[in-house]
Amino acid sequence: MSGNTFGKLFTVTTAGESHGPALVAIVDGCPPGLELSLDDLQHDLNRRKPGTSRHTTQRQEPDEVEILSGVFEGRTTGCAIGLLIRNTDQKSKDYSAIKDLFRPSHADYTYHHKYGERDYRGGGRSSARETAMRVAAGAIAKKYLATQGIVIRGYMSQLGPIEIPFKSWDSVQDNAFFCPDPDKVPELEAYMDQLRRDQDSVGAKITVVAEGVKPGLGEPIFDRLDAELAHALMSINAVKGVEIGAGFACVAQRGTEHRDELTPEGFLSNNAGGILGGISSGQPIVAHLALKATSSITTPGRSIDVHGNPVDVITKGRHDPCVGIRATPIAEAMMAIVLMDHLLRNRGQNADVRVSTPVLGQL
Amino acid sequence: MSGNTFGKLFTVTTAGESHGPALVAIVDGCPPGLELSLDDLQHDLNRRKPGTSRHTTQRQEPDEVEILSGVFEGRTTGCAIGLLIRNTDQKSKDYSAIKDLFRPSHADYTYHHKYGERDYRGGGRSSARETAMRVAAGAIAKKYLATQGIVIRGYMSQLGPIEIPFKSWDSVQDNAFFCPDPDKVPELEAYMDQLRRDQDSVGAKITVVAEGVKPGLGEPIFDRLDAELAHALMSINAVKGVEIGAGFACVAQRGTEHRDELTPEGFLSNNAGGILGGISSGQPIVAHLALKATSSITTPGRSIDVHGNPVDVITKGRHDPCVGIRATPIAEAMMAIVLMDHLLRNRGQNADVRVSTPVLGQL
Amino acid sequence: MSGNTFGKLFTVTTAGESHGPALVAIVDGCPPGLELSLDDLQHDLNRRKPGTSRHTTQRQEPDEVEILSGVFEGRTTGCAIGLLIRNTDQKSKDYSAIKDLFRPSHADYTYHHKYGERDYRGGGRSSARETAMRVAAGAIAKKYLATQGIVIRGYMSQLGPIEIPFKSWDSVQDNAFFCPDPDKVPELEAYMDQLRRDQDSVGAKITVVAEGVKPGLGEPIFDRLDAELAHALMSINAVKGVEIGAGFACVAQRGTEHRDELTPEGFLSNNAGGILGGISSGQPIVAHLALKATSSITTPGRSIDVHGNPVDVITKGRHDPCVGIRATPIAEAMMAIVLMDHLLRNRGQNADVRVSTPVLGQL
Amino acid sequence: MSGNTFGKLFTVTTAGESHGPALVAIVDGCPPGLELSLDDLQHDLNRRKPGTSRHTTQRQEPDEVEILSGVFEGRTTGCAIGLLIRNTDQKSKDYSAIKDLFRPSHADYTYHHKYGERDYRGGGRSSARETAMRVAAGAIAKKYLATQGIVIRGYMSQLGPIEIPFKSWDSVQDNAFFCPDPDKVPELEAYMDQLRRDQDSVGAKITVVAEGVKPGLGEPIFDRLDAELAHALMSINAVKGVEIGAGFACVAQRGTEHRDELTPEGFLSNNAGGILGGISSGQPIVAHLALKATSSITTPGRSIDVHGNPVDVITKGRHDPCVGIRATPIAEAMMAIVLMDHLLRNRGQNADVRVSTPVLGQL
Repeated sequence: MSGNTFGKLFTVTTAGESHGPALVAIVDGCPPGLELSLDDLQHDLNRRKPGTSRHTTQRQEPDEVEILSGVFEGRTTGCAIGLLIRNTDQKSKDYSAIKDLFRPSHADYTYHHKYGERDYRGGGRSSARETAMRVAAGAIAKKYLATQGIVIRGYMSQLGPIEIPFKSWDSVQDNAFFCPDPDKVPELEAYMDQLRRDQDSVGAKITVVAEGVKPGLGEPIFDRLDAELAHALMSINAVKGVEIGAGFACVAQRGTEHRDELTPEGFLSNNAGGILGGISSGQPIVAHLALKATSSITTPGRSIDVHGNPVDVITKGRHDPCVGIRATPIAEAMMAIVLMDHLLRNRGQNADVRVSTPVLGQL
Repeated sequence: MSGNTFGKLFTVTTAGESHGPALVAIVDGCPPGLELSLDDLQHDLNRRKPGTSRHTTQRQEPDEVEILSGVFEGRTTGCAIGLLIRNTDQKSKDYSAIKDLFRPSHADYTYHHKYGERDYRGGGRSSARETAMRVAAGAIAKKYLATQGIVIRGYMSQLGPIEIPFKSWDSVQDNAFFCPDPDKVPELEAYMDQLRRDQDSVGAKITVVAEGVKPGLGEPIFDRLDAELAHALMSINAVKGVEIGAGFACVAQRGTEHRDELTPEGFLSNNAGGILGGISSGQPIVAHLALKATSSITTPGRSIDVHGNPVDVITKGRHDPCVGIRATPIAEAMMAIVLMDHLLRNRGQNADVRVSTPVLGQL
Repeated sequence: MSGNTFGKLFTVTTAGESHGPALVAIVDGCPPGLELSLDDLQHDLNRRKPGTSRHTTQRQEPDEVEILSGVFEGRTTGCAIGLLIRNTDQKSKDYSAIKDLFRPSHADYTYHHKYGERDYRGGGRSSARETAMRVAAGAIAKKYLATQGIVIRGYMSQLGPIEIPFKSWDSVQDNAFFCPDPDKVPELEAYMDQLRRDQDSVGAKITVVAEGVKPGLGEPIFDRLDAELAHALMSINAVKGVEIGAGFACVAQRGTEHRDELTPEGFLSNNAGGILGGISSGQPIVAHLALKATSSITTPGRSIDVHGNPVDVITKGRHDPCVGIRATPIAEAMMAIVLMDHLLRNRGQNADVRVSTPVLGQL
Repeated sequence: MSGNTFGKLFTVTTAGESHGPALVAIVDGCPPGLELSLDDLQHDLNRRKPGTSRHTTQRQEPDEVEILSGVFEGRTTGCAIGLLIRNTDQKSKDYSAIKDLFRPSHADYTYHHKYGERDYRGGGRSSARETAMRVAAGAIAKKYLATQGIVIRGYMSQLGPIEIPFKSWDSVQDNAFFCPDPDKVPELEAYMDQLRRDQDSVGAKITVVAEGVKPGLGEPIFDRLDAELAHALMSINAVKGVEIGAGFACVAQRGTEHRDELTPEGFLSNNAGGILGGISSGQPIVAHLALKATSSITTPGRSIDVHGNPVDVITKGRHDPCVGIRATPIAEAMMAIVLMDHLLRNRGQNADVRVSTPVLGQL
């Protein structure tokens, strides 16, 4: 399949550029009978949308989604669901200055060489604006998964140099950062304010957790659940690393330390991040992703133009100084899409399985 | 597609268990006219095969591959290539003791819940023995990529707590660890010897690099080159993390630091790991992967049996105390398979592209 | 992949119901640099659209398409192309009478059992209205194929009992039937007028031909070009049979009769329909398809309601008495989509092939 | 995916040439817990295998299959099933005479142009020998489908000019032709004997029927059950046409005649062939396929060699004078694979559906 489709039984196909007329998605494979309203989609779209705090881009997009098909009298019909979001606040002339040059660390250069021509306005198809549709599609998956007892939540676990230990889910939705510790928020705000004064940007780390997933999701060998999660999360703009459970910390762990022991009451730890042999174990599924600093900053950087001449690049337009701030709902959406697909696949292939062993939780 | 197939135009499908009669693969989509001999496959299979040093499992498998189809008079025909490796050194009775219990941190538990029944001998399908076929298939991709000027090489960049800075490619093939610094080898040997005395295992970090890749490989949005690399590398047994370029270090990097500036002579750095916007930039493609410590150790661990009763597990049989030691050829193979697939896809969809801008190397 | 996507490198994904707000499609994998305008799409949409003669449904749909993405300054960018057609002339209340019953020979019954609930208005997703998006997507494929010297054209070869021998392409576009013999048109018109008076419907046979296809398209074993054509054409509403070349006539042919002999000047016949071993031979590709009579007629028929009670069904609403009349552009579109996909796939996998043997035409 | 894989949740991937060392297949997605023995596979392989009567090729192949993986202690494990059949009776030197020329109506010409080089021995990959693996894979699907109450059977419905009306299933397995009327067999034998004396070949028509399929299999829009059946059946060597139900006869049928009326006791006819709107209706699924006369005959035919020179071709070697005679088990296998895939897909996506309406059979 070409690259704008994700999934096998539950598939999401998207199209749309940052400054084109609209974003569009087709979500295929959603079971029939699911109650689905615009509010279900809009809730997560609003969590991702720009312009809601001073720490994100000031582009004003209502990101209002229209359901074009697949829902009848408030319930899914089992048919493909078409989704549409009109772009409303393009300021394309901001970008004419960069039409013929390559912003460092940006897809300008690679799209130019791959396609020979490109829509340079706002990054075109390579813009993170595309992720709005992932969030809308993911909201459908989340809604269905909730009917199966699965809850997916994310939070920011590091902003630049500031590590953010998890405290509780309570405050995550109450601040602009998806920060799980309200006491940390002032420090994050101060850091961001200084960053803007420095005309710079910074990276972030996001953690996503799925609870309530039963054992058995994930298809060996290549479609392991962790492999598909890595695929989905690495496909988000600016992501440069993905970890499951202990992640890179496992390199220095010994077997006696890393292995999650089992007792009749449950697992004693979760270094595995809820996935063993590529298949969900029933523990919470935990993934971390690293997002790089955006390349769109106003501090000049060395680059070249399409003719090979050296230039100094300053990126104007409206940009996020830390794309990680809005990434939490996107990461949740991608995890939801992967779990949804594997839930349906597992159900299709293993419906006959009868296992009497009790499913363990985590102590 | 079901989970034992990887790729879209260049596809690899595998089957086979650790203690079954044989491993088998079908490699589809290899262009015709490629000179291909058994030696081409055997070379990498020998690099991965067990029993070649005291630091890996002592199971003796010659891993001799047979080409069943797709090659005629020494050249590929364009038709599907069938590959077969017979298992020869199974000692299945070693495993009867663990038939009804779950080794901690092992796929036993998840396969049991997913499938209801399982081939417990040597881990069955979840054994890393399966990766032999990835290496054989990857060798075909490597051979073709070499005709396009692309070279893929890997090395061990960390063993347990010992970081191994890259020194040169020269010594990588000369030691059991794929260590890029010959002066570090004694330290690694001593560490492994102690580890065996401790009846423990440990994790490792592997780095893989592809040089000679032209700009343009990778399909937005979901089939980004980095996303598919993450998928492929995370699908390797025991991998818990994948990084592209700077990876998780990018979280603390500012935009002025992370961005790789361009000059007419070339890129000035490679934090991107050779991929921008999901598309190869022409710089070397660099990926890192974290492998956990194997769970098969003789130090007892708490677990349960299939009836839910508590047990102490000691894993006998022959096992690698550090599965990362043999992982370098596997990681190379998976990177080769991904690049091969994207080379063909890019050629199919973008054959008409004419770009006059010179391709930059890295300074 | 779920069922609303077709193709592998060139993929078409659609959504939308007969009486929903809109039809939508995402066309992925179109090479960059193709000049593409609304007119290119509208031309074929107008050939398919309803209400242009008294022989088709009187529903008035302008079928005006909007391009949402993937085209910049009049040329494709290589990115996914979003397409939107608003429904404007729904008369949903016409359908309330059939809400709880099954029209004989209609998808009502099977959608009900598959999904448990359904959008009954105008047939919902099962309506041939869906084919508008196939035509729009196919127009993109046709435009690209034309740049490669490939022309795809179709005609009606039988209407009910009236066989229509091919005379010339000249008149096909000049009549409401896509009839290749202008002298036959009055007979067809008279037949249709009588049919409407009889409150009945009838089947038709369509023939599609692709000229200019070079040898080599089609992937053994399962993705043979003829197999994928059969898939694509059989997926059109109401189609019950597909033939390649001689089709069912080959059953009674002997080998000495069926085989298309070759001379240095060309093939002497084309029983193969341009495909040998699943791969294009360079001869014209010829396919025939049989469309059944629509089930939506006003002559009462026996059926049951959703509770299992017997009912007499009369289908009101606006319907085509012969769906085959508007099927020619749809069949052309599906053939174009298949050829486009295989052109890109063949280019990707077999770019290195050098064959000195001249390509033969047909005598 | 490349062309040697069929299916989405239940996938079959094959490799192997007529005169290479072996045929191989990987069957992925079979649910765990299915009892499966070599006998289950061998039964259908024996029905297809050559050399069992004077009316088929005299090549002697035992077609003994080996199960390499995916079955443990007599039951499937849910893991990929590897299958191997060694070729044992190749007589490759028979083919040296045709190495550099193209047999009319044969894949020689198209493989040559597609791949530049080819394994000419016995047709290489284009040989119908490849279908042995389809039969083995299909036998697995049949075995599983039988546990769901689905039975798939086929018969010859026409041999050359001789139409064979269906009489009963009883005699189908008792004669070399899969003829459903024992009284017709002498006529078929006499026809074949004369055909061999004429040094000619002839086409045939096969009918396949699936009984016990519940309503709901098939995914709109492009993965309709009939579309995928057409794909699967047209992918069999020599097939030039596929019909569902009434097939091409529907062209001349009026709506009042074609529509299958429903009563509370059942459907009154089955012109639909058990599929409405691309979804199974619960009636028997009926498909017909047309197989052309093989091109491998000893009556000379005009052709050219690879240099473009005219030649007279006589095909020696051992060939079937009517490939349709052995096609019945192959057609059954392909229908089984399609139904199996759709059974799993439907179960995955529509597990929640609760429909109280009774399922109708056919009167």
